[in-house]
Parts: sequence; C-alpha cells; structure tokens
Amino acid sequence: MDYLGNHMLAEFHECDSDVLNNSGKLEQIMTEAAKLAGATVVSTHFHSYSPTGQSGVVVIQESHFAIHTWPEYNYAAVDLFTCSAKMDFEKAYDYLIDTLGAGKHSFSIVPRGYIKTAMAGTNEEME
Amino acid sequence: MDYLGNHMLAEFHECDSDVLNNSGKLEQIMTEAAKLAGATVVSTHFHSYSPTGQSGVVVIQESHFAIHTWPEYNYAAVDLFTCSAKMDFEKAYDYLIDTLGAGKHSFSIVPRGYIKTAMAGTNEEME
Repeated sequence: MDYLGNHMLAEFHECDSDVLNNSGKLEQIMTEAAKLAGATVVSTHFHSYSPTGQSGVVVIQESHFAIHTWPEYNYAAVDLFTCSAKMDFEKAYDYLIDTLGAGKHSFSIVPRGYIKTAMAGTNEEME
Repeated sequence: MDYLGNHMLAEFHECDSDVLNNSGKLEQIMTEAAKLAGATVVSTHFHSYSPTGQSGVVVIQESHFAIHTWPEYNYAAVDLFTCSAKMDFEKAYDYLIDTLGAGKHSFSIVPRGYIKTAMAGTNEEME
C-alpha cells in the first residue's frame, strides 16, 4: 500500500500538570522532540488558554508536530504529520513520556494520502 | 463516552493542482474554512516546499487546523483538532471540497483524550 504521509496520534495521560501548563517548557520539549525524530524545525507557535491549557504547533520541514494540553486532567494530545519515511517517531514518543511525566500513554499511526498511481507503478515493476 | 477533544482527518483527492501549490490562496481558503467552522483564528503559518507542495497551519483558539498538499498527486491532507463541541467541521469540509476542487474526498473523526473521571461523574449522576 502506498501512502504519501503518516499521521501519528499520541495520547499522554497522568502527566505532570505544571509541565502541561508551562508554555516555555512545552516549546523546548516539542522542539527537542522534533529534532530527536529527525525533523527540521521551521517555526514554533505556542498559545496559552485562560484559565489553563496550552496549544503548540511546531512547523517542520516534513509537515507538522502539535501538542494540546489539559493540565486539569493531566492529559496531552500530540500529533505528528510527516511526509518523510525517515522520521523516527518512537524517539520523540519516548522523550515525551519522560519529559511530560506520563503515567499512561499510547499512540496510533494513520496512513494518509493513498495514491493509486503509486500502486500501479508497483504493479508494473512486478510484471 | 467522554473525550476532551475531536480530531478530524480529511482526505481530498483529484484537486486543482494550481490551488494546491498556491500558498497565498491556501492561506485564504484555510482561514475562511476555520471561520466557517466557527473557529477563532489566532495565527496562520504557511510554508512552501521545493520544488512543489505547501504546508499550512492555522492556530485557532480551539486548537489547530492544518493542510499539507501534494500538487503532483492532486492530493491534500487536512486535519482539524478541536476542544470545542460547537465546531461545525462539515461546513469547513464542504467549503474545502469546493475551493480545492476535490473530485474525491472523505473524512474520519478520532476522539481524543478519554477521561475516566468524566465518566465517573456521569455514573454518580445516574445513582
């Protein structure tokens, strides 16, 4: 199956609420996580909610890496969209578990952009 | 089931490649789509790839709205993460079908951040 991108959706529960509500710290963590995954950071955009919660998007050369936090529930949602097969999401994931202090965590990968022509190309090679 | 957010993942195939490679046009489209969904736009960040393709993230008060395009495959991947139950993703989706000129399209919704305490609250009310 040929897809143009991969979208990793990660759930982090039982996190440190102080970290989840610290915009500067989250920006450092997400930037470092992007680098660990092998991404090239283009720009970072972090936003604080009132009274609590943070949103952050790291625009990377390979697409995007985002976090949204609910400190009151010790929960953070992270997603990494990448068009590169070389990205090492697991390194970023392990780093996020440590730095967010996540007691429970999981992730799933959603392939994006199924291209029939790519499949046709594969079939031709098989003939 | 109680979740903190919803993550809509949309696939747009057979799109107009000129639109998919026009960063300024995509920024206008994504900003308008966010407004149609009922989102409050905080900032927009668009990035062009060489030789082709665009990435754009609209940071919204309710989380994020992103697009990644492959003009050479007439494909765009869009995702909308929202912590608001009031967002009308279908309005944005219909608008994107029209403006991207998508011949084929689909979307799925991934609930994010299942919170047991919220369920516990519901159970208490039922007692």
